[in-house]
Amino acid sequence: MPLDLDSNARHALAQTVIRQAGDLAVGYFAHLDTLVCETKQNGQDVASEADRAVEDLVRQAVCAAFPNDGFLGEEKGFATGTSGYVWIVDPIDGTSCFLHGLRDWCISLALVKDGSCELGMVCQPSTGEFFAAVAGQGAFLNGAPIGVDRAARIDAALLGMGANFRIPVVQVTAFVAELLGAGGMFIRSGSGALMLAHVACGRLAGYYEPHINVWDCMAGLLLIREAGGWTADYPGEEGWLDGGPVIACAPQLRDALTRLVERSLERAKTLGSDQGQARGDIDTYQGTGAPA
Amino acid sequence: MPLDLDSNARHALAQTVIRQAGDLAVGYFAHLDTLVCETKQNGQDVASEADRAVEDLVRQAVCAAFPNDGFLGEEKGFATGTSGYVWIVDPIDGTSCFLHGLRDWCISLALVKDGSCELGMVCQPSTGEFFAAVAGQGAFLNGAPIGVDRAARIDAALLGMGANFRIPVVQVTAFVAELLGAGGMFIRSGSGALMLAHVACGRLAGYYEPHINVWDCMAGLLLIREAGGWTADYPGEEGWLDGGPVIACAPQLRDALTRLVERSLERAKTLGSDQGQARGDIDTYQGTGAPA
Repeated sequence: MPLDLDSNARHALAQTVIRQAGDLAVGYFAHLDTLVCETKQNGQDVASEADRAVEDLVRQAVCAAFPNDGFLGEEKGFATGTSGYVWIVDPIDGTSCFLHGLRDWCISLALVKDGSCELGMVCQPSTGEFFAAVAGQGAFLNGAPIGVDRAARIDAALLGMGANFRIPVVQVTAFVAELLGAGGMFIRSGSGALMLAHVACGRLAGYYEPHINVWDCMAGLLLIREAGGWTADYPGEEGWLDGGPVIACAPQLRDALTRLVERSLERAKTLGSDQGQARGDIDTYQGTGAPA
Repeated sequence: MPLDLDSNARHALAQTVIRQAGDLAVGYFAHLDTLVCETKQNGQDVASEADRAVEDLVRQAVCAAFPNDGFLGEEKGFATGTSGYVWIVDPIDGTSCFLHGLRDWCISLALVKDGSCELGMVCQPSTGEFFAAVAGQGAFLNGAPIGVDRAARIDAALLGMGANFRIPVVQVTAFVAELLGAGGMFIRSGSGALMLAHVACGRLAGYYEPHINVWDCMAGLLLIREAGGWTADYPGEEGWLDGGPVIACAPQLRDALTRLVERSLERAKTLGSDQGQARGDIDTYQGTGAPA
């Protein structure tokens, strides 16, 4: 179905600005040795002037064209609007990879209208790959239609997974145990948005992260649904600032992956008392036994 | 120090043949939908006609030029020689990534003389990156000298890790628990050789895999040592067919990483009785409790 003129104008802007954002990020990526960085919550939660500059570029472009739209960016928070449209942007998803010179980072941009995601874009400038989906119109990689891997089986699956310091470590290790126990295998590239895009194009069979921020996943989840995949419910607008778990996969894996996640959470509860927690939560944990 | 004529001739061949191998692999990568694949030990242990064809290309080139050299390849095993030289080749390291259309695969080639690795090359055709090291002469990426990350700290480190079905799952999860407990983070790209090369050029702070095959790591370990890094002892020729653990990092992380690995093995012993084992070892494991 064709979108209305208001949406079409925003989609055109999104296409332009995400590529400008990519070019700006690439410029910083070429001069990492002089980049100014700061640590946020812990040693793994970092941001650089590149993240801020890229977000500023997108925010200013949106604000100039559509001043009544809402805007939620990783680095500078949520500015609510009145138009019914909200832009959700991670200027550099996979900042740690970016800062270390690894290729697995991207720009993630989603446009939500009246609570429903209608546009998702993931742009990886280091490889020239550009993923885009419009609700009801399919998902595309560099203009060609993509689809999830409908032949994937859980006992031979390659899944993406996320790990971070907002969740107990045991939720990560318990899922690895369940997945490998079932014959599956994981990769963790460092960019949730990119791994979700890789589910959409069938390179990964699915993705799980016990907690992900909205700017990391909103575009990727639409990509997967538009590519024929299944995604578990993710919090609506009132929960955006809290984030939540993300579970997504090719449709035939829905039951198997959901079961693995449920079992991993049960296992995490059982093991929780004698497994550590991430340094981000408990600074005094020494890595050998119970958290202090 | 300059190498002798015998070595120089072999290094010249290696440079040529690894690029030919890369071109051949890229050709298969462009037509994954028609590739003939087979499962080896389990659903995650796969090989394709591409792996075999690339190994054949390298093996035949070596055999034609240096018929008395030994040759050890992942797909077709160990042919001993009489010259004192042994070539160790993984035709496609990261086969699972390759087969799923992900970029993280490479060709790994090492040349051992009288038991000592004197040449290591890792070639990633999908990005055009070519890592090479000669013993005593440094390590290079596309011709430019590289070095490990001498500023990395374990509580902000990004490490590569390997996981596979030759080891108990609990060794993987215990290491993740120890690493995250110490404030570090992991990536797993699916190619051990490539992650080792990324340690050599400072993108990753270190690498750990409880068990790795010789063809996955021999080139990468030389790259890291020649880039100023530290590598734990790996089995010599009598142990090549058995493989062993690989631990490697920037030099200042040696004690911290070694301690994390030791603690993870202790933790794995403690937890071993109520954690599952990989499907590759125990087919009947259902993923919820003790292995059958």
